[in-house]
Order: sequence, then structure tokens, then C-alpha cells
Amino acid sequence: MPTMGALHEGHLSLVRKSLAETDVSIASIFVNPIQFNNPSDLKKYPNTIESDIKLLESIGCQMLFNPSSKEMYQSLPNLKMDFGNLDLILEGKFRPGHFSGVGIVVAKLFNIIQPDVAYFGQKDYQQFLVIRNLIQDLSIPIDLVCGEIIREPEGLAMSSRNKRLSPDERKTASVIFRSLTKAKQEIAGKSMTEIKKEAEILLQQSGLRLEYLELADRSDLKLIQQYNPANPSILLIAAYLGEVRLIDNMFV
Amino acid sequence: MPTMGALHEGHLSLVRKSLAETDVSIASIFVNPIQFNNPSDLKKYPNTIESDIKLLESIGCQMLFNPSSKEMYQSLPNLKMDFGNLDLILEGKFRPGHFSGVGIVVAKLFNIIQPDVAYFGQKDYQQFLVIRNLIQDLSIPIDLVCGEIIREPEGLAMSSRNKRLSPDERKTASVIFRSLTKAKQEIAGKSMTEIKKEAEILLQQSGLRLEYLELADRSDLKLIQQYNPANPSILLIAAYLGEVRLIDNMFV
Repeated sequence: MPTMGALHEGHLSLVRKSLAETDVSIASIFVNPIQFNNPSDLKKYPNTIESDIKLLESIGCQMLFNPSSKEMYQSLPNLKMDFGNLDLILEGKFRPGHFSGVGIVVAKLFNIIQPDVAYFGQKDYQQFLVIRNLIQDLSIPIDLVCGEIIREPEGLAMSSRNKRLSPDERKTASVIFRSLTKAKQEIAGKSMTEIKKEAEILLQQSGLRLEYLELADRSDLKLIQQYNPANPSILLIAAYLGEVRLIDNMFV
Repeated sequence: MPTMGALHEGHLSLVRKSLAETDVSIASIFVNPIQFNNPSDLKKYPNTIESDIKLLESIGCQMLFNPSSKEMYQSLPNLKMDFGNLDLILEGKFRPGHFSGVGIVVAKLFNIIQPDVAYFGQKDYQQFLVIRNLIQDLSIPIDLVCGEIIREPEGLAMSSRNKRLSPDERKTASVIFRSLTKAKQEIAGKSMTEIKKEAEILLQQSGLRLEYLELADRSDLKLIQQYNPANPSILLIAAYLGEVRLIDNMFV
């Protein structure tokens, strides 16, 4: 499974899934510069390589690929990838160029490692769909597996960015999970406009700023205004606590 | 070597090169719909699969991959590839979307066939650089080989599109080769403006319409206004004979 390090229980659950389902598990740790649209986000991205290696060893991961930037990029790639609608909405809209950088680095890692199965987390659900798209559109002979979201006791989705939050802030940030849960409970009876307004207020009361909360089709993330229980859907959210941008999602 | 069929001596020279240099040679024949910006060009693209197979057998090519459109594209790809400057000049400029379609189908073929070496012809030199870019930017573990241009006795570069020309028109179209040769001879002493003007007149006298004639850096096709013998360069040309678009190039 490709990671950017700063490993947490979310990553480890993917490694455990791979250990259970395959012969050899390979994790990669590479903080990919070309997927950061915000340079200060790249600069502040946590680097915990020593403890990452210990964690991977402790659960029995057989191999680690930890290349340098120079090994991955002799020069900056000329190629850009455009994933159509997936690039225009949600993370694609708020992080221009992000998925091109993700697509290129994942294609590179696939070509270097040549795995039979690749594990990605549901927490970055739009990224998961981008990779699914990449695999399908380029006929890459890899099975893609989606691992479930692992959460802190209070509900905050595990993320490397959580390392930039204090223990108190992590509790505060669990309001994101509570907003999602509330939205899911109310989605059959209320409009998305009402639901967004309520989430915005709930988040504000805890000092968070809502960037987006959307209901979308689970297969392609086309945005939906009116919930239909017949169609598999997903609620997706992004919010800021101070300077730290956090995302989460929930199937409905 | 990936081809779109309608095989000629140019393709066969690539197969022979592969037969001499590798253990097993695989040709693919697939007329890739997503690289045609002009639908009537796709419709008129020659289909000579029976004689193609005979030609490949006659020179000892071991395998042919000849998929249907449905096998290659369950649905139209969502992904688009952008090759930066290569998409903005020459073929990229006059055939918008063309190299995205080329990049995607070649990446697919690479993933399906998984060759160690891939052979492309110099006649489509910009395409060759696009593939070089693709291989480098996605770390594809394939060696890329460029085969030289094969010409008709009068000088016209071999091309599947030549099948749309009568024998007389093929002789007429050799003015493209003569224009390139003349440009190469005069490039040290004349400006590109003069050289283009002369080529335009020469082509016009034979009933051809010049689309472009440019001097460019051989490594990245950045256009050059003033020839410098210290830098490896290339002259590239596109011209129409009736509705048939023909391209050619020459190292200088």
C-alpha cells in the first residue's frame, strides 16, 4: 500500500488486511511533492520515518519502499492527468492539480513495485475512485481494495494530519464525525441546503470552518441534491480546525 | 510494436528490428478511436487486416494482438493526459486531444502486453517523444526504440494514409520530402520565415497545402527560429494533398 508515512492505525489496518489476503506485503513511504497544491502543507507534513519503520516491523510487513525525491523524479514530470468530473468537485475543486500528482505517483509506484493487489483507505474516497479510474482507463493489471475508515475513540477519522493537532483539538475535531452522523440520520427528511446549514453551525460552535459537505453518488461522486435510498450514496466533508484541513466521509 | 494496421514497409522495418534484437516480437493492430480528433479521418482509416496478418506472418512475427474496441474500452476513458508543450505545438496544436488518446492507448497496450522493448517509428517523431515522456514520467519499465523513416522510391515517407492516394498522387506528394531536403540544405543560410515561404510555394506548385514547417529542438521539440549547428535539431512538416494529411520530418 502506497503511503506518505506518518503512519497511524488507518494505514496499519490496510497492512494487516494485505498480510491476511496476500503472500507478501509491501508498504511504500514517499511524501509526493507533486500532489501538494499548498507548499506550506507539504512543508508541515509530518515525517516520522523511524517510528513508521518500527510500526511496520511490529505487525510483520515484509517490505518497505522508501525512495528519495530524486529517485522518483529525475526531473519534474511533463505529464499531467485530468480525471474529468473527479477533478472538478470536492477535493479536486479545492486542491487543483492534486489528483494529477496522485495519479502520476501511484502509476509510478505500480510500475516500480508491480503488485497484484493495491490497498487504499476509504477515508480518501475520492482518491480511491481516482485510482480505480486510473487502473481501468490504463488497463493496469492490479486488483484494488478499499479499507474501511479507522477512527479515534471520539470519532475523528485517523489521518496523518491529526499529528498536527493537540489531544484536546483531536477531541474538538470529532465534531466532523458527529456532523456526518447527524447528516446521515436526517438526510431522508431534510434538503441538503438545510443539512449543510446545520453542519456549518455545529462546526462553528466548536471553532471549525466547513469547506464542503456534499451528498454524492458512490460510484462516480456526481453530486446529488435530493437523497434517494435506492441509490448507493456517500456524504463527504472537509473542514478546517485552525490551519489544519481535515476530511471524512460516510456511506448512506 | 503498436500499430493501427494498414501495414507498410515502415511497420515491417520495426518488426524486423524487433525480430533481430529480441526473443519474441508482438505486433498489435488496433485503430484507436480516441486519438482521432477528426471523425471522418477515423472513418476513412484503411482496414486491411487480412493482408496485414499475411505480411506479419511472412516476416516471422510471432504474435499479433488485435483487440476489438469493446475489449479495449468497456466505456470511454474518463482520464485525459496532457503532455505540456508537446500538446501545444505541431501535431498537438493541429490535432487537439490526439496525444491524450495516444498516451492512453499506448499505456493500456503496455499494461496488457508488458513488453521489455517497444518500437516506434521516427515518422511520427512527436508521438515518439510523447511515449518517451509517458515512459519516463510513469516509470514504465520498457526500453523505447526509434526506427528510421522508410520512404517510397520518390521520397514520400511511408504511411497508412498513403493508401488513400493514387500512384500518381504518391509521386506528387514526394514534394514534401523534396521541401524538407531543400530546407535542410538552406537552413544554415536562410531564416525560417524565408524557408517556410519557399516550401509553401514549392508545395503549392504541386497542388499541396502546407500546414506547418518548423525547426525544433530534437529532445523536446521546442521551436527554434534560428538554426544553430551545435544543437541537434529536426525539421517537421505537415501538408494536405486534397483531404489527405501527410507528415514527415528530417534530422538536421
